[in-house]
Amino acid sequence: MAEFTQEEKEYFMREALKEAQKSLAKEEIPIGCVIVKNGDIIGRGHNAREERQKAILHAEIMAIDDANENEGSWRLLDSTLFVTIEPCVMCSGAIGLARIPQVIYGAANQKFGGAGSLYDVLTDVRLNHRVGVETGILETECAAIMQDFFRKNREKKKAAKQVTKEQS
Amino acid sequence: MAEFTQEEKEYFMREALKEAQKSLAKEEIPIGCVIVKNGDIIGRGHNAREERQKAILHAEIMAIDDANENEGSWRLLDSTLFVTIEPCVMCSGAIGLARIPQVIYGAANQKFGGAGSLYDVLTDVRLNHRVGVETGILETECAAIMQDFFRKNREKKKAAKQVTKEQS
Repeated sequence: MAEFTQEEKEYFMREALKEAQKSLAKEEIPIGCVIVKNGDIIGRGHNAREERQKAILHAEIMAIDDANENEGSWRLLDSTLFVTIEPCVMCSGAIGLARIPQVIYGAANQKFGGAGSLYDVLTDVRLNHRVGVETGILETECAAIMQDFFRKNREKKKAAKQVTKEQS
Repeated sequence: MAEFTQEEKEYFMREALKEAQKSLAKEEIPIGCVIVKNGDIIGRGHNAREERQKAILHAEIMAIDDANENEGSWRLLDSTLFVTIEPCVMCSGAIGLARIPQVIYGAANQKFGGAGSLYDVLTDVRLNHRVGVETGILETECAAIMQDFFRKNREKKKAAKQVTKEQS
């Protein structure tokens, strides 16, 4: 597994946050991801489910696909995946299948997390690939962008309901 | 959930087996999948990991992506996914995320199955989408194509070793 200084970890998590901002700009759930190998970003992704109407287009899936394309290989050995929010079950499975040895995520996902919260796919000794997991890098920023999104979403829905009520 | 006669289930599983044959022709692990809605196939997929060097390109992921494209929506409500082998953890997660309500698979995957064997992602009451699961349709055929593939693979490796030994 690659070793990163705290400064390097925060640098790459900020790059993942830049990806999350791309989702936010399209009114998507703001989650971003980068994959790093030998100090270079080899894959980038952000949640684009609504825009592209594709169920699988989570940040991690897009980043894995991008890295596979750039590396010309489905095996992402010696790489590290940085993601703003804990991967879901699908994405945790995909990380193992891509042979990524290390995951660093910002904030946990208590409801759907597959990397420690609801399931622990990445460290399951029954699977043929185990992944080192670290969490808490820029946790506050990574969680805040999500909370902001869902708060604004609720306000929008409330306002829309108010308009409907006044018009009826 | 859609209701199918035994004949209809076997018909669609044979379509999934046709997809698995496409993988086999490319020397890929032979798994195939179709997604059915109102009696029509709306998505098809077969394992293409080696050919396209993409870690996520399992049969189910390709079929979900195809169905999302054809339907113009990430939600595959009222559909049924037929797959020759029990979905892995990644694919089980993807099935839930695509809101597919029903999965019918041929043979179990004791080592990596996410729909009953190793995990039970599709019926987990903690997740916000639960999926009806049925198994055993054309089980012998679905398992046999896999066993054949792995047997031939072992023979090929053995023959290659023999050649290396004779040459050294």
